[in-house]
Amino acid sequence: MKVIGMTGNLKAVLDALDAGGEAALARLFEILKIPSVSTDPAHDPDCARAAEWCARTLKSFGFDASVRQTDGQPMVVGHSQAGSTANAPHVLFYGHYDVQPADPLDEWHTPPFEPCLKQDGANAQMIAARGASDDKGQFMTFLEACRAWRNAEGGLPLSVTVLLEGEEESGSPSLAPFLKANRQELKCDFALVCDTGQWDAATPAITTMLRGMCSVEVVITGPSRDLHSGMYGGPAQNPIRVLAGILGALHGGDGAVRIPGFYDDVVAPGKDQLDQWKALAFGASDFLGGVGLNKPAGEAKYGVLEQLWSRPTAEINGIIGGYTGPGTKTVIPSQASAKLTFRLVPGQDPEKIIAGFRTFVEKRMPPDCEVEFIGENGSPAVGFEVSAPMFEAAAQALAEEWGKAPVFMGCGGSIPIVESFQSQLGMDTLLVGFALDNDRIHSPNEKYNLTSFNKGARSWARILAKLAAL
Amino acid sequence: MKVIGMTGNLKAVLDALDAGGEAALARLFEILKIPSVSTDPAHDPDCARAAEWCARTLKSFGFDASVRQTDGQPMVVGHSQAGSTANAPHVLFYGHYDVQPADPLDEWHTPPFEPCLKQDGANAQMIAARGASDDKGQFMTFLEACRAWRNAEGGLPLSVTVLLEGEEESGSPSLAPFLKANRQELKCDFALVCDTGQWDAATPAITTMLRGMCSVEVVITGPSRDLHSGMYGGPAQNPIRVLAGILGALHGGDGAVRIPGFYDDVVAPGKDQLDQWKALAFGASDFLGGVGLNKPAGEAKYGVLEQLWSRPTAEINGIIGGYTGPGTKTVIPSQASAKLTFRLVPGQDPEKIIAGFRTFVEKRMPPDCEVEFIGENGSPAVGFEVSAPMFEAAAQALAEEWGKAPVFMGCGGSIPIVESFQSQLGMDTLLVGFALDNDRIHSPNEKYNLTSFNKGARSWARILAKLAAL
Repeated sequence: MKVIGMTGNLKAVLDALDAGGEAALARLFEILKIPSVSTDPAHDPDCARAAEWCARTLKSFGFDASVRQTDGQPMVVGHSQAGSTANAPHVLFYGHYDVQPADPLDEWHTPPFEPCLKQDGANAQMIAARGASDDKGQFMTFLEACRAWRNAEGGLPLSVTVLLEGEEESGSPSLAPFLKANRQELKCDFALVCDTGQWDAATPAITTMLRGMCSVEVVITGPSRDLHSGMYGGPAQNPIRVLAGILGALHGGDGAVRIPGFYDDVVAPGKDQLDQWKALAFGASDFLGGVGLNKPAGEAKYGVLEQLWSRPTAEINGIIGGYTGPGTKTVIPSQASAKLTFRLVPGQDPEKIIAGFRTFVEKRMPPDCEVEFIGENGSPAVGFEVSAPMFEAAAQALAEEWGKAPVFMGCGGSIPIVESFQSQLGMDTLLVGFALDNDRIHSPNEKYNLTSFNKGARSWARILAKLAAL
Repeated sequence: MKVIGMTGNLKAVLDALDAGGEAALARLFEILKIPSVSTDPAHDPDCARAAEWCARTLKSFGFDASVRQTDGQPMVVGHSQAGSTANAPHVLFYGHYDVQPADPLDEWHTPPFEPCLKQDGANAQMIAARGASDDKGQFMTFLEACRAWRNAEGGLPLSVTVLLEGEEESGSPSLAPFLKANRQELKCDFALVCDTGQWDAATPAITTMLRGMCSVEVVITGPSRDLHSGMYGGPAQNPIRVLAGILGALHGGDGAVRIPGFYDDVVAPGKDQLDQWKALAFGASDFLGGVGLNKPAGEAKYGVLEQLWSRPTAEINGIIGGYTGPGTKTVIPSQASAKLTFRLVPGQDPEKIIAGFRTFVEKRMPPDCEVEFIGENGSPAVGFEVSAPMFEAAAQALAEEWGKAPVFMGCGGSIPIVESFQSQLGMDTLLVGFALDNDRIHSPNEKYNLTSFNKGARSWARILAKLAAL
């Protein structure tokens, strides 16, 4: 039996990754070509294909892997049992093979599901495709690290279970029941998740705080049918006007959300944490300037990094009502609707936030309009104590790969699985990812730097070695 | 040469209409089957077919008719010269062969372009189709009256020019240049327009006041691309939020439009007119109740009939932004837009109203969002002095057909042609129509009562006789 976790062995693994970079990229392109958009039922067969691909891939480097059916998109579960490392922790790696819808299609410079390598202005190479960063490129860094361990050293230095889901971009409805039904199989010492970003292109990061999220769609019905705005305009109530009035009242001039009680349960970060963030000298104007903005639109009394990492939001993600085709249609529509999400921070209860929003809307409804709320769901925020040994081990591994210590950071996004691991399986999560702020995830022309992909895989190879030695 | 305009002759015309009802209905169904939606370029060939049909039909009862190309949908012009009636006025009849889009299609009980006869609850027969009332059914009442005069009496009792346009539902962009270029050919003593309604199913009406209209689309751009609401939510400005804030501020709690100066130039109706309207005992609660509403949403200090006929409005006809498909997409969109129309009353200048709206929006724009206004156009309101002889002649004819005097009423809708006739050709317009409030024009399940169609044709036959005798 080989001795594992030593520098010599790790070097062989890293060499295997360096030698196999081209083949690894070809494998990533295979999965990027599958348009596994989970939110659109038309893509269900693609999600099934993506799941099959993942299971087949895990098997190819020794995992006992299978596709598991759910009421929604299938899960993929794989196990790799380490031989001589009974004392090493058993870790659960989580990723998701589904992607966001690619629309608006006409804004893509290359087709979203035909991955290719491009040069950016600074001559870095980028992988361009929907899902290149979120999350196919990211989870493949881990799988490639496992493959290299297997190929170079005959197996992984610790026991690993892999869970890949296909509904992360559509609210993960099947995840909680799946975790509950397979608790015994999936419970590990802690979880590894690769769905977060680096601090910048040269600096790795470990994410220790994630905003939660809850979502709701509000549908307002006024007249019982569409009306002619000449025949009815004036006396007839217009549901777009009602909806605009309500949504327009959601934020104050100071950027604060005006739902009563919205901030009541917010747990503010500690002074140490805030001091560390301030020391980061975050480039707020570069951050906003990079997307054509310049004035922070959140709560005026908080800095941009605090607005992103430690303050909750109310966001209108979509709105529609009336005639939106070419030309003019003089209609007073029967309905208007909007989709909203709320980003939550530690202390906030998703149900309470949704209830507050409902009351806010209902109080503003004219007597002869009706309101319906649909598709509500949510998960709270999470924050970790970073003194646990796994954080230190991962930080060392990242420092060795990148030549500088990782930043412990917050994340404005929500990864509901992390909360589920905590509440349902009692596991903390080590969040390490290699995405960059300019990866354009959820937008046209999503990309993942080739450096993220290659050094990401090397980072995981190192982290596995460090964790095996815990 | 026949003596025309006498009761005996008119009786033969009316008898011809009564005997030919079935054939007339079949002709109406022919034109209703053509989906001549002018606002959608995909239907351009259908508009061309509809124009050809109209010209062919006019020729079939003696008009010298032709299709005239424009930069948009074609016009149809036809002339019928009366023989011995040199002293009778020469009239211009106007109608439009284009229709509103039929969407939402799934709310139609029968396909919008497959006309059929239906019974309503009260056993009245209705013609169901897009355009049945607005305006194909209406203009065909006039054409059938002309056909009956020709068939029964060999010709019309006065000279008639017919102008049918194909862009009334999309702002009539070609109309002004066409009137200008063909002023000599189209200038008559006055115009007849059949695009308005009765007071109720048993009471005819002459419309003497029409609201004007102007329209504008507002497009707000925030971030330079769609953003992930987790990565940017908080500091990034959301153009839906900006748009909702602006549109939500457009009306006060009292229903009044809050654009500065919006009401400055409004010319209020005279006391006599208001008294007449009050005497009509308009059933405001039935009017609103019929479309599922109960509280007038216009300016609280005016009655419903005044809100409809003599007060201007600001109406949001459509709004769109962000993700509006199934499920959730956590996006902060780059753009959000809305289409608005303003109904105008006498005294108001469309350009001034649009300028006021633009200022209203621009004053509320955050520094890093951009606003664009597109598709602006408009026409002012019109009001007639009803003491002219043609109004009296038409009123007598309608009273003889319906057994009761017509109501002189206002109309909340806009018929820009009427303003064009006044400003460009110096003609007043006699507005007589047979639509009913429950015709659902611009909505799914548009219909036209068979009574409106048959008695409408008889009414025009009588009006032509009275006008010939002026």
